Order: sequence, then structure tokens, then C-alpha cells
Amino acid sequence: MDFAHNTKTQDYLSRLKEFMDQHVYPVETQIYGETHELNPDGNWRKWQSHPLIEPLKQKAKTAGLWNLFLPDAKLAKGLSCLEYAPLAEEMGRCTFAPEIFNCNAPDTGNMEVLYHFGNEGQQERWLKPLLAGEIRSVFGMTEPDVASSDATNMQATVVQDGDELVLNGKKWWTTGLGHPNAKVAIFMALSNPENDKHSQHSMVIVPLDRPGISIKRMLQAYGDYDAPFGHGEMHFDNVRVSKQNLLVGMGQGFAIAQGRLGPGRIHHCMRAIGAAEKALELAIKRGQSRTAFGQPLIKLGGNGERIADARIAIDQARLLTLYAAWKIDNVGVKHAMTEISAIKVAVPRMLEQVVDMAVQIHGGAGMCNDFPLARLAAVARALRLADGPDEVHQAMVTRLEIRKYQSN
Amino acid sequence: MDFAHNTKTQDYLSRLKEFMDQHVYPVETQIYGETHELNPDGNWRKWQSHPLIEPLKQKAKTAGLWNLFLPDAKLAKGLSCLEYAPLAEEMGRCTFAPEIFNCNAPDTGNMEVLYHFGNEGQQERWLKPLLAGEIRSVFGMTEPDVASSDATNMQATVVQDGDELVLNGKKWWTTGLGHPNAKVAIFMALSNPENDKHSQHSMVIVPLDRPGISIKRMLQAYGDYDAPFGHGEMHFDNVRVSKQNLLVGMGQGFAIAQGRLGPGRIHHCMRAIGAAEKALELAIKRGQSRTAFGQPLIKLGGNGERIADARIAIDQARLLTLYAAWKIDNVGVKHAMTEISAIKVAVPRMLEQVVDMAVQIHGGAGMCNDFPLARLAAVARALRLADGPDEVHQAMVTRLEIRKYQSN
Amino acid sequence: MDFAHNTKTQDYLSRLKEFMDQHVYPVETQIYGETHELNPDGNWRKWQSHPLIEPLKQKAKTAGLWNLFLPDAKLAKGLSCLEYAPLAEEMGRCTFAPEIFNCNAPDTGNMEVLYHFGNEGQQERWLKPLLAGEIRSVFGMTEPDVASSDATNMQATVVQDGDELVLNGKKWWTTGLGHPNAKVAIFMALSNPENDKHSQHSMVIVPLDRPGISIKRMLQAYGDYDAPFGHGEMHFDNVRVSKQNLLVGMGQGFAIAQGRLGPGRIHHCMRAIGAAEKALELAIKRGQSRTAFGQPLIKLGGNGERIADARIAIDQARLLTLYAAWKIDNVGVKHAMTEISAIKVAVPRMLEQVVDMAVQIHGGAGMCNDFPLARLAAVARALRLADGPDEVHQAMVTRLEIRKYQSN
Amino acid sequence: MDFAHNTKTQDYLSRLKEFMDQHVYPVETQIYGETHELNPDGNWRKWQSHPLIEPLKQKAKTAGLWNLFLPDAKLAKGLSCLEYAPLAEEMGRCTFAPEIFNCNAPDTGNMEVLYHFGNEGQQERWLKPLLAGEIRSVFGMTEPDVASSDATNMQATVVQDGDELVLNGKKWWTTGLGHPNAKVAIFMALSNPENDKHSQHSMVIVPLDRPGISIKRMLQAYGDYDAPFGHGEMHFDNVRVSKQNLLVGMGQGFAIAQGRLGPGRIHHCMRAIGAAEKALELAIKRGQSRTAFGQPLIKLGGNGERIADARIAIDQARLLTLYAAWKIDNVGVKHAMTEISAIKVAVPRMLEQVVDMAVQIHGGAGMCNDFPLARLAAVARALRLADGPDEVHQAMVTRLEIRKYQSN
Repeated sequence: MDFAHNTKTQDYLSRLKEFMDQHVYPVETQIYGETHELNPDGNWRKWQSHPLIEPLKQKAKTAGLWNLFLPDAKLAKGLSCLEYAPLAEEMGRCTFAPEIFNCNAPDTGNMEVLYHFGNEGQQERWLKPLLAGEIRSVFGMTEPDVASSDATNMQATVVQDGDELVLNGKKWWTTGLGHPNAKVAIFMALSNPENDKHSQHSMVIVPLDRPGISIKRMLQAYGDYDAPFGHGEMHFDNVRVSKQNLLVGMGQGFAIAQGRLGPGRIHHCMRAIGAAEKALELAIKRGQSRTAFGQPLIKLGGNGERIADARIAIDQARLLTLYAAWKIDNVGVKHAMTEISAIKVAVPRMLEQVVDMAVQIHGGAGMCNDFPLARLAAVARALRLADGPDEVHQAMVTRLEIRKYQSN
Repeated sequence: MDFAHNTKTQDYLSRLKEFMDQHVYPVETQIYGETHELNPDGNWRKWQSHPLIEPLKQKAKTAGLWNLFLPDAKLAKGLSCLEYAPLAEEMGRCTFAPEIFNCNAPDTGNMEVLYHFGNEGQQERWLKPLLAGEIRSVFGMTEPDVASSDATNMQATVVQDGDELVLNGKKWWTTGLGHPNAKVAIFMALSNPENDKHSQHSMVIVPLDRPGISIKRMLQAYGDYDAPFGHGEMHFDNVRVSKQNLLVGMGQGFAIAQGRLGPGRIHHCMRAIGAAEKALELAIKRGQSRTAFGQPLIKLGGNGERIADARIAIDQARLLTLYAAWKIDNVGVKHAMTEISAIKVAVPRMLEQVVDMAVQIHGGAGMCNDFPLARLAAVARALRLADGPDEVHQAMVTRLEIRKYQSN
Repeated sequence: MDFAHNTKTQDYLSRLKEFMDQHVYPVETQIYGETHELNPDGNWRKWQSHPLIEPLKQKAKTAGLWNLFLPDAKLAKGLSCLEYAPLAEEMGRCTFAPEIFNCNAPDTGNMEVLYHFGNEGQQERWLKPLLAGEIRSVFGMTEPDVASSDATNMQATVVQDGDELVLNGKKWWTTGLGHPNAKVAIFMALSNPENDKHSQHSMVIVPLDRPGISIKRMLQAYGDYDAPFGHGEMHFDNVRVSKQNLLVGMGQGFAIAQGRLGPGRIHHCMRAIGAAEKALELAIKRGQSRTAFGQPLIKLGGNGERIADARIAIDQARLLTLYAAWKIDNVGVKHAMTEISAIKVAVPRMLEQVVDMAVQIHGGAGMCNDFPLARLAAVARALRLADGPDEVHQAMVTRLEIRKYQSN
Repeated sequence: MDFAHNTKTQDYLSRLKEFMDQHVYPVETQIYGETHELNPDGNWRKWQSHPLIEPLKQKAKTAGLWNLFLPDAKLAKGLSCLEYAPLAEEMGRCTFAPEIFNCNAPDTGNMEVLYHFGNEGQQERWLKPLLAGEIRSVFGMTEPDVASSDATNMQATVVQDGDELVLNGKKWWTTGLGHPNAKVAIFMALSNPENDKHSQHSMVIVPLDRPGISIKRMLQAYGDYDAPFGHGEMHFDNVRVSKQNLLVGMGQGFAIAQGRLGPGRIHHCMRAIGAAEKALELAIKRGQSRTAFGQPLIKLGGNGERIADARIAIDQARLLTLYAAWKIDNVGVKHAMTEISAIKVAVPRMLEQVVDMAVQIHGGAGMCNDFPLARLAAVARALRLADGPDEVHQAMVTRLEIRKYQSN
């Protein structure tokens, strides 16, 4: 048992930190403010990338800090899930940083799907420009009209019609849909109702310019459009794509979803841990710099205890996530299901607790956009629902726990 | 001891509920949606009142459901704090309802200040149009550059110069500033630094069209501009008003603030309780109407227990608030300080818990504006800071509690 | 709505407080210590009443502070549930006080059963000596071999055999069994399995000297035998009693249990509230009198906030319990089920929180018997299970809550 | 980074588990019951070791599972802190198991003190028989008359008088004092009040048969005497020991205490984690085997979610503790202070949560001694105070956390 990161990881981590220090943090407040506030004329900013982002992407690419998430040594740097984890944490300290390194959701997950399950044509057409950071993608799973916590409730359909697939239905919370570079969706829908429960659905690649696709509206998540990325409600009305766009085969949707699961969970949890570190740092700095009743805020009442609790919660969450990553690398997703579900529950809770404490110490400044805290509060809350509500993952942990005693 | 409301209260309550049923709830979704979403052209709505609001105000006035908060029998209906409390709860079930009955913050608090502390000229000039619902007002206390949890930190200044008062400084979180009818502020600032700690500040009435006042920006609270009301950052740069605009006298600011305190706290807590009832209702309806894993959501896992906990928390919070109101009416604010501080802590916590549960049961729909839940989550969180952070009020309760044993 | 107690209640309350001040508190530490510690020879004290108790009972009787719980004006003082509630709170401040006023569980509940459901002969034989404080009683419902949270699981049986009833089965947690004055049990068991679910059980009065009754063992609750009262595991092996000992009729057990329910819940919750007040008082006194790191403990870290939270939790719990009592008095148990279940959940939780805080402030002294805190911690924990686990009562609240929306 | 235990650890762990399976678990219920219940004659058992313990100790010695905690390769097995940690967890699954392997507190801590700080004579006289399991020891630090959370409050004194040291004062919570084999104490007291704050105290070895030592009383911890070990209140009245009994030197008490700190914390935290695993196991087994309302308990309401939360909390606590052990081994106690304090806070909280859940699922059986749960609840609660109240350790974490930003 060894808690030290290997030298490869340490090297990437120090280079990443240096990049963040030199190029990202100095423009953090500017980008953050200009993205989330109304224009001076009282209008909302367009759904467009902040002009500083693209140059930063080029710098990151040049610096060899690009596509770090992808385990492939040729297409990327060959970092394992555990090796990438601390890098994801570092990126998570700044909400817009992951995009700079082409490591942002949902593109990472979609690229992994294409990498593991796409055929050569699909990879050439879609994986290549995604890896190049030229386009962005969305993932359509959740639906507005059913409880999507039970994925088998899905009502959207895929029907084969000759050489084409015909798609119908509604998807919402398709993250990233608002971005001007969003060009393609991975769409999951019911295709084989005659099969057993987990072989009824298929995944299809859908270019976003297909006729029949409409963006009904962009959704606020806890008051935040999360522009320029956003979350959309999309309607599919007899959308036709070539059979070539089917991933793997009809009825293979859940199998693919399962494969997509593990590393993606590690990524978003590690980013959340980085965000929590950021929130804790802000809380301490604010708590020391502002004074009330004759003392720095951090010395008042239970504030100190809450700082300690934040540190304790963060460290525990990080260790559990790293352990889950290690299990994925060493015994595979199937044997790491308890940990993969456990971090889904533990990490967002921890982030909520830490951010809430930081907001409280900041007072009114914590609620507005002078700090990224209100935004992180929305992220934390959303994570308790995104990727399935916590309760579904608790149920998974329980089921596996009970199973241990069932042969007894 | 008797927990039944008197007949006067029961009568107003049934009339208010009928009004809400007939006129407010039917347009709730429409107003809510049109207020919080972007326009079809992707722009934010202007800072203007929804067109349905003014007609509703007229209806409420005609129905005799107007200014219910004000205890004066001639200017209003002569309802005591305890008699008004359940009406505030009912109004709180819909975020925009209080304005319809001219019972919205911060106008209620400002009207109370003018009613109790304004002289005849001030009442004629400002209280009258406020009671008529023709103008709106803001309250400027919190400042961006200091920890305002300690009100004695205030840096803004009022200096007398002949027959004029000269105001300087910054205020933020001046709620309601975005509304087109906002015409006047009550501004609190340091005037007599030579006095003892709680006699150094004064309150001044400031028309918003005075030269030297600038709106630096409107603030989002947890991602929400709360348009058309909004919260502003205001800068006062040598703003001059007549000496006539001074409330009571120089150095009387804290005394006035204290007097403003009790009933306002009851109002916002009762509204929060109404909001919690609304959230619980939504949770139950959603939990019964959506199905996952073969059961209505409400039967899954701990959802039922959380429904029970919500009911228990709401009922306890309501009783404590009504008890505080009864104490204000019967022994006065000074002898109800424990209760007035206690509800500041207990009620927002309760609202957060109930709304969070409701959001979780709604899934993605709970986070967007299809339901008022995301908005209520922001309100609940803000209430833990608004009117002083909870910790300041806990400290007050503790101080009074310890005092009980100090003569022993 | 009026939160003041009526003059009758205020009168009894002041007399009771005076009695406690003069006669009970001065011997509290002595009785407490001598009851819970080992003898100097390292042996446990016998199951006998502390010698100071009986004289105190006589004093209370003389002072007219006797059987206050019973609403009957002739047999007792005719106090309603709401009028008695604050008296129960006062008694609850000292764990052995209720017995002094003949207001201790489970005798109060048993006397209520005999009062409401016993026939003349049963009342003469058992109610009379119980009201006189000459004997004590136990209640046998929970069983060791089944999940008694579901009362219909009960396996003990009552069978009629000519003029006799034959009892078989096991009961445990029969509180008060260790007391030398314990002379009679009310025993609930399956009698009519052919009936519908809630008409299958009967209640029988069983003198404890009947052949076939054995005390298998006395049980510790969280390490405490709660001597001299104790909780027993009793086995019934073909115990025969006269048919005259049947309460009401065969199959009426649940109906009687329901009737016993409401006031008993008020009593134990109000006692728990008194206990919490005591714990808070101890915490504040200790927190002020001991010093660490240069300050009184109460000023350190979050201690002050926890004091405030205790006050807030106690006051809310009390108001909810008083409200439940008022509903029982005014609309009856059947229409107060939400409140009766709610306080079962809310009050023990509150007591646990307050006592836990007080223990922590006392350090090691909080864990041993120098203070009643460790004992109260056990009581609080036990209350979350006694009378049905909290979860059963949450389920009741949930069911009633959902029902509100089912006709919609 | 590697989460697998090395082969040495794995080997010891499998041998230890086998020993537990063959020799300990089969007699667990018997020893547990016979230790904690009254005798059939209603008296408490003597302060004597259960007769099955000594033979088990011999078996463990023979099996090479003895003194595993001690890092010395000659005197023991040379296991590092991290290598021993999982063994401590396994032992912690049964409250009396650690003694069987001579790995019980406070002897382990005392042996470490003697090992690291004792001179040859002291080691020969006391370490040797302790390592042989022939005698037991106690540690005297906490005092009844001052807030011992601030160790500098200590009032007991050591004064040199010629070749002797004279000890005066009171110590309580001297764990293990009731055991017949308890022969020696390590006593910490004020010796050099003229020195700086952390050089004023000394540690002295005190044979328990010295004149002037009296056992004032044995203390119950949350109702449990924890016989035959127990916790005592000891009075020292001019107790004289030879100067040879001084550890290291006058004024070195805190330095020694610091050195004792790290590994001991790991040990008790890992044992607590083992206890939590045991509680979770019991909860699941009970939850599956008992039925209410037509379902196994584990399927009712939030029980399943609480099982998941227990698993998640245990795994996080274990990882944090192992990480702390790794830091102690690799960078030393001084650089692992955050983690050593963090586990003091996190692990007992976790144990309390898990045990409380298990008790609730067991109902009444969870509160009595039919299962070790009530005992574990007392242990968990005590751990939040033992070794300093949590708040002191939170303060340490906070201080170190703030320090990170103070050079900024």
C-alpha cells in the first residue's frame, strides 16, 4: 500500500499546476464575470465561447496538456484512470478549465464511447474532431416525461427503416447543447422492446443539423444557464440518420452505458474535489481578511470547526475516489461497482457541505458572482441528481452489501 | 392556551385563500415562467413588472385584502402580528403573491419604519404612496467592503451640512432596486462616531432620483436576478438630501432598526413556511404521479420518511413563529428577542431541508423553472444570510440563554 | 390563539416547582448516585426503592400533587391533557420525580386503560391501589422473537378455557418489572386469529404471582438496568387467570391500545422536554464554570451555537407537543394522529441532540453518573425505539400527508 | 499509488482471520454475555478476567499472533504502522479480542512509551512483563477537577525529594484499572511550573501497590463499567517512588505524550472501523431475517439507504486512517498532524452513525446485551471524548489549514 503518486503523474501534475498558475488563474475572475453577468445593456450574453478560451486551448495543446483523460498512449498520453485523477482535480478548481485541456464533460464520456465502441468510420468522422477540440458533443439520455432515475422508463424510440434509423422522442438536460461548437449527439432510445430489460435500448450518433431536431428551450439549473454550454430540451421528430450511425448494434445501449460509466464518474468526482479545495481556500482567505465583533470571521463561533470538517470531508472523498480509480484500473468496472456508486453519493454531498460553508463565510458576496461559490453550489446540487439521483446509487451499494451475506 | 385562530383571522384567511384560488394560482405558472426565462430571442426580460400583476393588485385592493400587514386599524385592517401571520403564510405559497396584496418585502418593513418613526411630512410624502402601492422602496444597510454581520462595521456616512445631509458610501443587496416603481431608499450610515456603539448611526430617506446615486450593478442571488425586483449595488457619491429626510434624529439608526425588527421577521418567516408547504405539496404530487422501478417515487427508499420529516419540521417552525408573534404582541419585541432570533435560524433551515427534498423527488425538473423549487432553494439559502447570518442570531440566543444563569 | 397557560395550570405549576425546589432537587444527587452506582462491596444494589422515595410520595399526596395526569375530577384533579402537559415537563427534569407524584410510566398508561376500559370490579381491584401508589404495574406488548414494530406480528396467545383465560408466550421490555411493588401486568396477545387484522388481539389483566409466569432476566437498556424499575423478559407458560380479567372483550386489544395512545405520548414527550431543559441548564453551568485555553468552555468553538440550537430545538418540540395535547383535548386522538406521531419522532431526536451536546461539554463527567446526562442519553436513545421505532411513526405521518392529496 | 496490502500484511491478516474464526467468534456470545450481565443472584461479577481469556492468549502467542502492534522486529514482528492497521481492524470486530493478542489499549500505548522512552532498567522491570502479557497497566492523565481538554490545566504534581519523587493529585478515566493484572501506572503531572507551557510536566512510572494510592471509585461510561477492565478515579496522596521511575527527564511529559500519539490513534481508529464493520454485518443479517409489514426490515423505508451510507462512511474512514498510518511511517508524526487529528474526529462519528443504525434495526435487542451494539454505542460515544474531545482536534486541523495561507 502506497499513497504516493508515481513520477509520471507527479510530472504531469506539476506541469498542469504551472499552466494553471501562468495562464488560467490570472484570467479566472475576468472570464467568470464576463460569462455570468448581464451585459451593460441588461441583456444576456450570446451562447458563445469567451474569446480567451480558444487561445488557451491552443496553449494547452502546445504544452502537451491535451486529452489527458484518454488512456490511449498514441491518441493521448496513456494515463490510467488513477494517474489522470489528480489532474482532473486540479482542473476542477476552475469551472472553465477542463475545456482548455479538452477534458470537459460530456465530451470526455462521448469520446470514450467512440474510442471503445465506435467503428473506424465513426471514429474518423467524430472522434477525430472531438480529440482535436474542433467540435463539441452532447449526450441524450434523460427525458422530461418519465422518471429517468429508472433508465428503463425511457420513451424515445429508434426504429430501423431500410438503411436508416428513425428517431423520435424528447431528451432534456443535454449538457453542452448551447455551445456554438456542439455538432453531434449520442442519443439513447428504446429499439427492441421484445428483448430482456437491459437489451432493449440502442445508442445512435446523431449530427445536430439533421432535420426533425428542435431545441425546445435551454434550461436553467438552479438559476444558472451555464452559458455558453447550457443544458437543452431537445425534441426529435422523425429524425433520420444512416444505419452507419448505430453504435455496436441494436439493443447494446445499456452495455455501452455501463462501459462509459466508471472513468467518467472518477473524472467528475475528482473535478468536484478540486472545486471543494477551491471553496475551502476561498473560505479561509475571506475568513482571515474580514473582521466582525473584533475578530477575523474565521475565529468566530463554529467557523473554525467547519473549516476542519471541510478538510476532513475533502480528504476522505478524495481517498475514496482514488481508491475507486485504482479498482477500475486493477479489477475493472464490474468489480468496482460499490466504489463507483459510493463516490457518486459521497462526493457531491461533500462538495455541497464545503461550498455552503464557504458561502456563509462570504456573506452576500458568496451568493453573487464575485466568487465562483454560487455557481459551485448549483454544480454540487446538480451532481446529486445528474448521472442518476443519489438514491439510485445508494440502492446499488445496498444491494451489493446485502449480497455478501446471502450465501451465508 | 388555545391554538385556534380567532374569527377575524379565520375570516381573512378564508377570503385570502379564495382570492388565491380564483385569481393567483391560475396564472402562477404563466407569470413564473415568463418572469424567469429568457425571451425567445435569447435576451433577458426587462426590469419590468409582469403585465398581469397590476390588475391583480387592483382586485386585491377592491377585495379588502390590502396592506394586511399594517396593525393600524384606520390605514389598514388593524391586524396584530399574530393575526396577520397565517395570512403571510398563505401569501408565501406563491413567490409573487405578497406584492399583489401590498405585503411584500422590503416595502412592509419600510412602511413600518415610516409608520412608527416618520413625521407627518415624511408619512404624507412617502408612506401614503407606498400604502397605495403606487411606488416601491429599498433598504440600504449591508455594504460590500466590510463584514456587515457586525452592523457597527458600516462605513457609509451621513454628514449634516447646513440644512442638508450629505451621504457617501456603498450599499448592496438593496432588494427591489430593479423594479420600475422603486422610488425611494431608506439609507443607514455612520453619522456620530463620537457616540457609544449603538448611537453612531442614522437613517435617512433618500429619493432614488437624487444626483450622486448610481446603480453599479444588479446582483444575482444564487444565479437568480429575482427580476423584476432584483438586488442592487448602489454607490452614493456626495448625495444631498434635505434635513427633513432624517428619520427621528441623528444617531437613532439602531433604535429604529430594532423597532423594525420583530414584525418583519414574523412576516418573512411565515412566508417561508407557506413556501415550504408549497414545496411539500409539489413533492407529494410528483412523488405519486411518477413511477420508477415499479413503484410511485414516494414509496421508494427513504422518500416517505423525508415527507414525514418535512411535515414535522414545518409544523414546528410554524408554531415557533406564531409563538414569537404572540410574544411580540403581548410582551413586546424587547422581551421576545430569543424567539425572534430563533425563528431566523430555524425557519430558513427548515425551508432548505423541505425544498431540497422536493427538488430531489422532482429530479431534473426540480432544478429548472418548470416548478418554483429552484427559486425557493435560492430564497431559502439567501434567508440564511439575509437579515444577518444565522450565526449572529444564534449568538443572540446563546447570550440570552447564558444570562438566565448569571445571577445564580 | 393564546400561548399563555390558564390560571389553573399556572397554579399547579408554581406549586409543583416549589415542591421540587424544596423536596426533590435537594436530594437529587444523593438518590441518583445511590441508585446507579455499585455498593462499596462491589455488588449491585437490590431491586428496591430508594428509602427516600416513599416519604416523598406521602408529602406529594398531602400537598395535593398526586395523580395529576388523570383527567377525572373526582379521582384526581380533572386536568386536561394540555393542562397537565407543563406539569409533566417539570417532573421530567428529574428522572425519579414522576414516581413521587404517582405520574410515572407505565403506571399512568395502565391506569388510563383501567379508567377508560376497566369494569367496576377491575377498577376496584387494580385501579384503586394504583391510584393510591400502593402497587405498580407493567405492560406486556413487545416480544423478543418477532419484529414488534409491526404489532400484528405478536405471537403470544390468549385462549379461553371455560371460565379461565390461558396465556402463553414471551414478552420483554416490560418496564417496571424489577420494582418490589410491581404486582400486575396488562398483557396483550393474539386471541382471535380468524378476525380482521386489528381485531385479533386481546388485553388481559394478569397478577404477577400467577403460576407459570417467570422472569427470564432483567434487561439493560444501553448499559443501564434502570433499577429499581428495570425492564424484564417474562415468559408465560400456561398462565391461567379468570375470565373476569379480560379487558372489554375478546379481540378489543388494538382498540384499547389506540385509546391508551394519545395522552401517554404527551406525557413522555413532555417529560423528555423537561429532561432536555435540565441537560441544557447543566451544559450552560458547566460551560461557564470550567476553563480551557484561557476561556470558559462555553465560549470555545461551536459550543455557543450548539447552546442556541438546543434552545431552538427544545422550544419547537415543546410547542409541537402542546399543540398535540390541545388537539387531543379538542378534536380527539383520531384527528390528532399526525401530531401524536410527529412528537414521537421529533422529541426523542431533540433530547438526543441536547443531551449529546451537554455530555460533550462535561467531558468525562458527562459519561459517568456524576450527572444524570449519561442516563438521559440512554433514555433518549431508548425513546427512539420505545412505543414503536420512529420509522413506524414517520410512516404514519407520511400516510396521512399523502392522503390529503388523494381525492384531488 | 497502490491500494493493495503487501504480502506480509496479507499473510498476517489471513492467519489472524483464521484464528478469529476458529477460536474467538465461537465463544464471543458466551464471553460477552457472561461479562456484561448480572449474576443469577443479582450481583455484579467480580473484577476478574473471564476464564476463557487466558487460554486464548496462550494460543495466540503460540500462533505467532502476539504483540503485533510493536514495530520492533526482535521483540515483536516488525510491522509498520500501516502493516499493522488492518490487523487492528480485524481485532476490533470483537470487543475483547485485542487483549487476546496483547494488543489492547492502554497497554499498547504504554508499551510504546516504555519502548521508545524507557531506559534499560525500566524496560526490564515493566516492558518485559507487559510484552509477555503477564501484567497490565494504566495511564493517568485526565483529572476530575479541571477541563482536561486543555492538558496544561493539569493540577496533579510531581516533586523531587532527594532520590524520590512525590506524587499528589487526582486522575480519573484510568482505563484498565479494574483488571486484576493491573500493576503499574504511567502518571503525568506538573513538575516544572517555571518552564514554558509545554515543558512543565513529567511522566512517572508508578507501581499500583505504592502507599498513598487509593481507588476512589470505578466509573461507568454511559452506563457500562466495562468490567473487568474498567475506568477508575484514583487519588494520589504523597505517593513516593524512586527517581529511577522518571521517564526521560523532568519536564519531558509533553514530548513523550506527543511521541505516543500517532500509532495509538491509528490503533484505536482501526479497531473502531472493525467494530463498525461488525455492526453493519449485524444490521444486515437482522434486517434480512426479521419481517414487518410483509417485508424484511432491510427493505422498509430508509433502511437500505442507511446501509449504503454506512458502507460509504466506513470505507472513507478506513482510507483516511490508512493514509494517516502511511504518513506516520513515511514522513513522521510531526508531518501527519492533520491526518492524526482528522481521524480522531471522523472515525468515532462514523462508528456512532453505523452503530446507531444497527441498533435501530435491532429494536429492543439492539439496546440490551444480546448483541454487542449497546456496548459499541458507548465505545463510540466515549471515543468522541477520549484522547481529547473532538473539538480540540478540529481546532488542530483548522490551525494547520489556516497556516497554509498565512505566508501568502
